[in-house]
Amino acid sequence: MLVVMARIKERIGVVGTGRMGANMARRLKDCGVTVAAVFDARARVARRLAAELGGGCEAPRKLARVTALSDIVLTVVSDDAAMEGIFARNGDSLLCGADGRLFINCATVSAEVHQRVELRVTGVGASVLEACMASSIPQARDGSLYLMCGGTQAAYQRARPLLRLLGKTVRHIGGTGDAARLKLIVNMIMIANTAALAEGLALSEAAGLDLTMAREVFAETGAASRVLVTDGEDMQRREHDCYFSAEHAAKDVGLAVRMARKARLKLPVAVAAQRQYERMKRAGLGDLDKSGVSELTFCGRSKGLPR
Amino acid sequence: MLVVMARIKERIGVVGTGRMGANMARRLKDCGVTVAAVFDARARVARRLAAELGGGCEAPRKLARVTALSDIVLTVVSDDAAMEGIFARNGDSLLCGADGRLFINCATVSAEVHQRVELRVTGVGASVLEACMASSIPQARDGSLYLMCGGTQAAYQRARPLLRLLGKTVRHIGGTGDAARLKLIVNMIMIANTAALAEGLALSEAAGLDLTMAREVFAETGAASRVLVTDGEDMQRREHDCYFSAEHAAKDVGLAVRMARKARLKLPVAVAAQRQYERMKRAGLGDLDKSGVSELTFCGRSKGLPR
Repeated sequence: MLVVMARIKERIGVVGTGRMGANMARRLKDCGVTVAAVFDARARVARRLAAELGGGCEAPRKLARVTALSDIVLTVVSDDAAMEGIFARNGDSLLCGADGRLFINCATVSAEVHQRVELRVTGVGASVLEACMASSIPQARDGSLYLMCGGTQAAYQRARPLLRLLGKTVRHIGGTGDAARLKLIVNMIMIANTAALAEGLALSEAAGLDLTMAREVFAETGAASRVLVTDGEDMQRREHDCYFSAEHAAKDVGLAVRMARKARLKLPVAVAAQRQYERMKRAGLGDLDKSGVSELTFCGRSKGLPR
Repeated sequence: MLVVMARIKERIGVVGTGRMGANMARRLKDCGVTVAAVFDARARVARRLAAELGGGCEAPRKLARVTALSDIVLTVVSDDAAMEGIFARNGDSLLCGADGRLFINCATVSAEVHQRVELRVTGVGASVLEACMASSIPQARDGSLYLMCGGTQAAYQRARPLLRLLGKTVRHIGGTGDAARLKLIVNMIMIANTAALAEGLALSEAAGLDLTMAREVFAETGAASRVLVTDGEDMQRREHDCYFSAEHAAKDVGLAVRMARKARLKLPVAVAAQRQYERMKRAGLGDLDKSGVSELTFCGRSKGLPR
């Protein structure tokens, strides 16, 4: 793991300390950055992380205290509602006393939410950057995330030194919301390719072909894809430890399909992939990795699952 | 172009001189192989190719004459019916006087047809190998095809020196039919990925994103795929010169879906991709390259096309 000792003097807060957020906090700590506060809706999770990080890191009960303790706040919450919640106009919120703060929002939430949050944040004299991640948990831990940023040049330039510690690629995509839109589209393609791969491997097995050989041929032909590398062997071996959950896949492709409908586009392949991941959720397989879609396609694996 | 001067003494016949077959014949000629006969259902096409190849190459009207002139016959016909036709039990057929000949069948036809042809060919004392191609026209011309072979070890070993002139990769996949099955699965995944990419690019455009930037991001993330490299820019630029036609895509994914149904598998993403290519055919776009599926997905491109 490459650890870059940073000259960043700003105090950092991290809101949303699930798998991604916690690893980003750990990475920043490793780089010598002051992680001043961590917060999670599950207070125990945040307290445990604060204790692990040490160095005076607090796990306050109130979001306003995170803002008070931090110059820059990274947010990595689970969905639109959580994002609206932490930036609520009333009650306890990151907006309380936020003048001069920079909020870097890393969760996969809708572009509309990013834009609404931008209005609120700039309204209290703070600034905001979306920094969408097209990577997963190991990359969060070792600082090799792929970060797509949307927002003003000023916010991007202020955030960049910190983001360079978290990401091997940091790209400015466009205005607020543009990174979220592109991230959703990346995930939509990825998820459709994953579902298609699960179909191809299932059919290979049904045809009596050796799956290791089939994957080698896929890799050398027009069937090659990134998800073949990341998910192909897991599908074959039924190893679905979660890096990118089926539930998350269903959510992201759902958001992309909604965006398409608003633009009057018809995306039937994405819709078919979405239905597969929705079916995984109904079957109680939402916590599996996205590779788990092979549990629906392989002969004999899906017995007894709801349609 | 790498030209390997071959020590192959066997006389070669080529049946089916469309884009692929003609380029394979040219390549063999470049390598110093004797192309003794070419045949196509469109007699003029075959005659023109024979004249181009020279060296005494004939373009006979009868298939039996191809067999008489050749030790090894490469077949690259368009579909199952054409394949059944050239290996008909009665009338003019490659089977006439075929004792000792080797037939190498390169068309994308069903595994069942490969197996039926094998029975007929071995019945007349000849041998047969399927050699499915997962590449396109430029690769046929310069001898860099990806060849997946199905058949006996004896047939494979006899065919291999010739196939090495045509392919940069020559793999023995399994018994007769197995290569066709794997080839269809490769194409099914490729076509689903292509249709998904066309959806992702269409949505990127609708979101106001720069498509060149979007493709760069796709290439660096989970959206990466071989078809992004081969078809992404063509989709953006609406350049759909045909390397792998939409009609061919519809045919291959249709065969794969049929194979899946027989095995009682449900492959909804492949079915969605199949419907897109069937729609291209109905819209009169079957002759476009498979990248032309973007004509269905991009806002404003599909106006007036049938549903």
